[in-house]
Amino acid sequence: MTTEYLDDIGVKAKKAASALARLTSNEKNMALTLCAESLEKSIDDILSANEEDMKNAADITDAYRDRLRLTKNRIADMAKGLRVIAGLPDPVNEVIAMKSLPNGLIVGQKRVPMGVIAIIYEARPNVTADAFGLCFKAGSSVILRGGKEAIKSNAAIAQVFNNVLQSLGLDANIVQLITDTSRETARELMKLNRYIDLLIPRGGAGLIRAVTENSTIPVIETGVGNCHIFVDESADLQKAAPIIINAKTQRPGVCNAAEKLLIHQSIARDFVPAICEQLQSKGVQIRGDERAARFTSGIIPANDDDWDTEYSDLIIAVKIVDNLDDAIEHINAHSSRHSEAILTESYTNSQRFLNEIDSAAVYVNASTRFTDGGEFGFGAEIGISTQKLHARGPMGLKELTSTKYIIYGNGQYRQ
Amino acid sequence: MTTEYLDDIGVKAKKAASALARLTSNEKNMALTLCAESLEKSIDDILSANEEDMKNAADITDAYRDRLRLTKNRIADMAKGLRVIAGLPDPVNEVIAMKSLPNGLIVGQKRVPMGVIAIIYEARPNVTADAFGLCFKAGSSVILRGGKEAIKSNAAIAQVFNNVLQSLGLDANIVQLITDTSRETARELMKLNRYIDLLIPRGGAGLIRAVTENSTIPVIETGVGNCHIFVDESADLQKAAPIIINAKTQRPGVCNAAEKLLIHQSIARDFVPAICEQLQSKGVQIRGDERAARFTSGIIPANDDDWDTEYSDLIIAVKIVDNLDDAIEHINAHSSRHSEAILTESYTNSQRFLNEIDSAAVYVNASTRFTDGGEFGFGAEIGISTQKLHARGPMGLKELTSTKYIIYGNGQYRQ
Repeated sequence: MTTEYLDDIGVKAKKAASALARLTSNEKNMALTLCAESLEKSIDDILSANEEDMKNAADITDAYRDRLRLTKNRIADMAKGLRVIAGLPDPVNEVIAMKSLPNGLIVGQKRVPMGVIAIIYEARPNVTADAFGLCFKAGSSVILRGGKEAIKSNAAIAQVFNNVLQSLGLDANIVQLITDTSRETARELMKLNRYIDLLIPRGGAGLIRAVTENSTIPVIETGVGNCHIFVDESADLQKAAPIIINAKTQRPGVCNAAEKLLIHQSIARDFVPAICEQLQSKGVQIRGDERAARFTSGIIPANDDDWDTEYSDLIIAVKIVDNLDDAIEHINAHSSRHSEAILTESYTNSQRFLNEIDSAAVYVNASTRFTDGGEFGFGAEIGISTQKLHARGPMGLKELTSTKYIIYGNGQYRQ
Repeated sequence: MTTEYLDDIGVKAKKAASALARLTSNEKNMALTLCAESLEKSIDDILSANEEDMKNAADITDAYRDRLRLTKNRIADMAKGLRVIAGLPDPVNEVIAMKSLPNGLIVGQKRVPMGVIAIIYEARPNVTADAFGLCFKAGSSVILRGGKEAIKSNAAIAQVFNNVLQSLGLDANIVQLITDTSRETARELMKLNRYIDLLIPRGGAGLIRAVTENSTIPVIETGVGNCHIFVDESADLQKAAPIIINAKTQRPGVCNAAEKLLIHQSIARDFVPAICEQLQSKGVQIRGDERAARFTSGIIPANDDDWDTEYSDLIIAVKIVDNLDDAIEHINAHSSRHSEAILTESYTNSQRFLNEIDSAAVYVNASTRFTDGGEFGFGAEIGISTQKLHARGPMGLKELTSTKYIIYGNGQYRQ
């Protein structure tokens, strides 16, 4: 039964995608603007659906409850997000390159819609609006499978978009929400490569792993961030402290927050107690290796797992390293390849760090918190890719498209 | 035991990759040139290894036997291929874009090596040299798993490269050949996502399917080509015939050869007999739908499977369509999304075909045989991607790289 249910969704998504691919930018932008307006008009309906979700979700953590909760402001932010997307340049049909071959053929490469995109996500109902908006503008129909706790909120939001699409004479199946939130259905969804061109999981490490291991659809992994800051021997310590405090404490729950602090041994004696005191005064729990613990009190011994863990919380682990080589080796062995920073005044060390660290975003003398589509000027993002294929780092509209070669001839055949 | 064997290969490949990533273009080009020279000096050894493979492979088809066979010329071609790769621009460290953000951060995006690439392939031993050369220049170590029939030839070729690398003081594990050619080991290789960044299958539809269904490593599908030519009502039939003959007969075994011919009903009466006669005179077997068979004799009835089959042989299936819509619908339903062509003098129809056909390469008035890295000016190719993620169409050196963001700051933290 699950198979039939998903098959039907797949067929409809593919059909919707081919009609969507033919819309002009104006048509898409108008639809997005109407969706934003309609979201605002539906605030009461969405809030009461969310209220039900909140009631049904009895045994969840406070952090999860916060992610699940919708407010007037949060719904207004979704609408604002759709208007921002309407204002962004349309990536579809952009010709990236075009040249003529010696035989007179003209070969161009242009961006085309991906086709059908599926998104599997967890608590936040705002993903329903963001993912629809980005996929729609990028010309792809979207199949959404949110967390079961958010099902009523997600359904209320998706219904708004379905209604707007229908009122415009467009195919409502451009966005479909999977209402069967069983694990079994999610697993089957991951095998639907005959209909779906791209699967993006948005959520914790467990979800990402499940998708990577089970999907036959091409996947882009997003979001796990075990980010490092390395304070080199020559760092300007006046600049270093605010960067570290910012990267750890400004928003500890997000994936570009710093989770690990590596400190060069030659500056450890003074810098470890100073930075730990500042972090602790902001409520940060500090874990560390034995060498770090020698320089200050109040450091909880870190175990082997700590070095591979994304805390997503006010916790940081401090490690003393002998030199840059040690720092690079440790980071490349333990990071999730999201964002890492070196704080240094050494030209050579900054270049080596930029070259040798194998992560999506590598910083010199700045906070890891900047790894973000908005900060990078993309206008909006669907997530931050930590894999190497197709897209790496913040993913905007362009990263949601594919390309195709178009070739203009006048009778050429191969010699 | 297999697990340990592959684990060891994975660890060594990852270690070799990080050293390889630091080589300059000059160092890589010199190594490639020496590999080419050494291949030429080893012709006798390689030929005698190939002789053994040919003896051991008793019950294989003639076509397979031809793919397996090495000759002096074929080895010289491999050496030439390596020299061509040495002469191509190095994609690694190319900065694609760089801009400054309002807060003074400078954000650049540069090409970086993929890391570790695995290639699973079938009969042709020349893939051993081509894949090594391209991956090496693109800065990635490579794990090769060729067909069991070619094991001695592949081992002899890989040994040449291992020796050259060692003689240059480089890590010989930059290229590793898997000598255990069991299916079980291939299946386990597909799960090694902790070491391998990209898996490329090169071979028939069966291999591609097995990899897509089993791999936990990001995959790029290559090569299956059920390519179509649509002859529109307004086609210049003088130009059409040579294009069709070329696309079908110039090299029927390759993936960009035409397999299907769709003909507009309004020109069928004259054109079907004319083109069939020309194709038959070149030894092409013609299958077709009922309507096509009405216009000429000697057409074998096509069954449902024909429309989805890549013959890779001197066979073509002919179908009469009512109009452009019919043609587009049939192609998007049955093609393998490789290469399709329209032959037309209609501006509107040419644009619709270019826009609405969902394939890697879409042609107007030219043969599908041009879908090729060499023809497109890439200098060399690792294969032709028929998927939408990361790379679509012929894949050259750039498509074997990833990117990373590099960010230059001077103390910035997020407000």
